[in-house]
Amino acid sequence: MDTSANTSVFERLAIIGVGLIGSSIARAARQRGIAATTVLADSSPAVRDRLRALGIADEVRDTALEAVANADLVILCAPVGVAGEIAREIAPGLKAGAVVSDVGSVKSAVVSAVQPFLPAGVHFVPAHPVAGTEHSGPDAGFAELFDNRWCILTPPEGVDASAVERVREFWSRLGSNVEVMSPAHHDLVLAITSHVPHLIAYNIVGTAADLETVTQSEVIKFSAGGFRDFTRIAASDPTMWRDVFLNNKEAVLEMLGRFNEDLAALQRMIRWGDGDGLFDLFTRTRAIRRGIIEQGQETAAADFGRRSPPPAKP
Amino acid sequence: MDTSANTSVFERLAIIGVGLIGSSIARAARQRGIAATTVLADSSPAVRDRLRALGIADEVRDTALEAVANADLVILCAPVGVAGEIAREIAPGLKAGAVVSDVGSVKSAVVSAVQPFLPAGVHFVPAHPVAGTEHSGPDAGFAELFDNRWCILTPPEGVDASAVERVREFWSRLGSNVEVMSPAHHDLVLAITSHVPHLIAYNIVGTAADLETVTQSEVIKFSAGGFRDFTRIAASDPTMWRDVFLNNKEAVLEMLGRFNEDLAALQRMIRWGDGDGLFDLFTRTRAIRRGIIEQGQETAAADFGRRSPPPAKP
Repeated sequence: MDTSANTSVFERLAIIGVGLIGSSIARAARQRGIAATTVLADSSPAVRDRLRALGIADEVRDTALEAVANADLVILCAPVGVAGEIAREIAPGLKAGAVVSDVGSVKSAVVSAVQPFLPAGVHFVPAHPVAGTEHSGPDAGFAELFDNRWCILTPPEGVDASAVERVREFWSRLGSNVEVMSPAHHDLVLAITSHVPHLIAYNIVGTAADLETVTQSEVIKFSAGGFRDFTRIAASDPTMWRDVFLNNKEAVLEMLGRFNEDLAALQRMIRWGDGDGLFDLFTRTRAIRRGIIEQGQETAAADFGRRSPPPAKP
Repeated sequence: MDTSANTSVFERLAIIGVGLIGSSIARAARQRGIAATTVLADSSPAVRDRLRALGIADEVRDTALEAVANADLVILCAPVGVAGEIAREIAPGLKAGAVVSDVGSVKSAVVSAVQPFLPAGVHFVPAHPVAGTEHSGPDAGFAELFDNRWCILTPPEGVDASAVERVREFWSRLGSNVEVMSPAHHDLVLAITSHVPHLIAYNIVGTAADLETVTQSEVIKFSAGGFRDFTRIAASDPTMWRDVFLNNKEAVLEMLGRFNEDLAALQRMIRWGDGDGLFDLFTRTRAIRRGIIEQGQETAAADFGRRSPPPAKP
């Protein structure tokens, strides 16, 4: 993290779409002095009311177009399915030299959707902070969300280098480690580290809910056997995740194909009683978690350090 | 929990196989006065040395046969694959009227393996505390592990009712809620709430480790996108889990079949761009987590309440 800078990286910051991620950026930008002025816009009147009540930014505007006026950095934080639409809306209001970025979990589709609408002289530097929780909406955000998480930038060929550098500094000041890669590689990496994990979590929770031989009440009671872990990411925002799968189809299907092949091999080991094969895999997988803990991306505490509360009184 | 009783439920408790679960029982039994005397045995000399150093029980014996002498309750806490072998070994040393129990994650196979060796006049009350962490071994145990978790008893037809009652009280005093069901139903319920979740967690961690297009370093860095959650249960004890899959084959393959069918349907939705279908599932799955939280089996805090530590210095 760059601790030398105490001045703002961008004078005027506009955030379009203010849920968990957008509101966390707003909170951190203000608390850490990363932007002098922050302006928010959201298409939902209820969210705008809530943002005014929360008081986490200097201005809350009714439209994205109003919000981007004179902004030095515009960050699109709505679900990726509407990124193109928003770009079309804001294009006429962007000031010359402005930097446009986003926080979408897919990058190739977002670049294709947004780039065509941006006028010459506006710099597009797509970004993806790999951070979040299962909670959604502006109340769920917090300033520390990005601390020690990675943010991936996927700048298009030929984009202004100083714009990329300022976006990198912005995310460093938000607490993140920054890495640069191509949109296509990003989409492949995230397919295995995020998209397929979410898909199989959603899937097993759905499978469990639909059983007729095991009741939903039993699934809930005995979930501490492992199942409850999956329900966390399967409680993530449905609109966001629908858009991720619709917009990263190729990479998700590729990684899912590999997951399925490997699962078929495991299934066969169980059917044929291949204990050595099972033991080998179960031993090998421990090393990956050790690496994640060593690199500060996970707690070493047992059971995520969580303690469940006492049960609600009936 | 029965708070009226301050006297021990069983005079002399013997625990055979002392890892996370066995050592947690020993710690809780002593701290809460649930057994007057606790005796431990483990087949590993290194574990026995460690148990003597930890001082969590009254006696540590070199063999299971020695440990069960005069015991009122004997709990088998070794991996389920060796339950039958241990039963054969201890049978000649069990006192008349003793209760034998276990903590295995599968029940039908354990009943078949253990029951034939037990002499008449010994009461067999199989149990499965649905609790644990990803850590293994006697140092990983703690007295609070079973607090507010469920323990499932699967007593065979015709077993002495008072023996079942005393095992129920034992687990209540350990902090658990107790439910009774048949071994076959237990194995089906746990296949979906524990065994298949572990299998797919082990599987995706293996898939990610084997990729050639995404490096292991990238998988580790960007694991906060969801993947890291799966690495927790994929770090569980390999021997224990090998034995679970070898001994609950039918139920695991049945539940895995359903998981695969549902996943194929999801895969098809992605391929054909069925956003409504995806959205419907992703909305439905949120309710299950709410139920788990409401029933005290999970924390409501975002991200399991975990905070990652700062990264290790390079």
